[in-house]
Amino acid sequence: MKKLTLRELNRVSVVDFQSMKKSPVVVVMDNIRSALNVGSAFRTGDAFAVEKVVLCGITAQPPHREILKTAIGATASVAWEYHEDTIRAIEKLRNDGYQIVAVEQAAESKTLEEFPFSENEKYALIFGNEVTGVAQPVMDLVDHCIEIPQFGTKHSLNISVSIGVVLWEFIRNRKPV
Amino acid sequence: MKKLTLRELNRVSVVDFQSMKKSPVVVVMDNIRSALNVGSAFRTGDAFAVEKVVLCGITAQPPHREILKTAIGATASVAWEYHEDTIRAIEKLRNDGYQIVAVEQAAESKTLEEFPFSENEKYALIFGNEVTGVAQPVMDLVDHCIEIPQFGTKHSLNISVSIGVVLWEFIRNRKPV
Repeated sequence: MKKLTLRELNRVSVVDFQSMKKSPVVVVMDNIRSALNVGSAFRTGDAFAVEKVVLCGITAQPPHREILKTAIGATASVAWEYHEDTIRAIEKLRNDGYQIVAVEQAAESKTLEEFPFSENEKYALIFGNEVTGVAQPVMDLVDHCIEIPQFGTKHSLNISVSIGVVLWEFIRNRKPV
Repeated sequence: MKKLTLRELNRVSVVDFQSMKKSPVVVVMDNIRSALNVGSAFRTGDAFAVEKVVLCGITAQPPHREILKTAIGATASVAWEYHEDTIRAIEKLRNDGYQIVAVEQAAESKTLEEFPFSENEKYALIFGNEVTGVAQPVMDLVDHCIEIPQFGTKHSLNISVSIGVVLWEFIRNRKPV
């Protein structure tokens, strides 16, 4: 099998990306400790054409050396904003018409493959701190909770991997282009 | 929504993991530069209960400080082996009955959501080097190629994210338990 060259991949330019139709989804990062995870969210958000990344609390913001390392330039294409308070960020997203969804392991969560993403809704997906997860006061505000089924010994997936898996499930049936 | 406690997650022990039924899939890492990506493969491989991780060429092996950092212990649960030569590793997997599938961007690739994973087959999924991808001599040997649809400015996803996304697509319809 012949691999495609970079030219054959025919990727969009940063300018074209900014004006193109996006996946109706926002990635909210609630007090993420690792700037490497933030950079990875930008890179994945670029690939899956998310509307924006919302950085909250202690989550690092661009420009930042470690974000740069894993974003490899995607901070130039993907829109982002910062909010000191995750709860204020969520209230704003709700006012803007987003369904608020935590990615967490909770009593009332739905598993990822059974979560009924609606074609007529837009979603804000909240990913929480590497150790403590999405904060309980934030959990108290969400409309829904998605859980990624896991079968092993560890209690969770890496947050960068979780973002990729959930965004893929979201767009696999509703491509942005 | 009330988050589940670690106890409520009710994860399996390392001993139980080793004897439990696995997803019929092996992750092959072809000359991966970053040991952090290797550790992440173990952590994701644990969560999605893969049969084993096959480390090839320059790919780092446990025990290794950076693998430990991202695997957070999953090198104790997930089976692994090392082969100096990726091609030899693939020949062995083919002899063992695995379908050989590269995750790459190639002329004849199928997109991830359209790839027809068979219920009666087991798969070896090959992930390539961070810069050069799966080596062309390896590509010449594979049965199939899967491409993750991407809509942004960057030419690829991070390998840890790619592993998560492809494994999720594999197991979303055929859970190991």
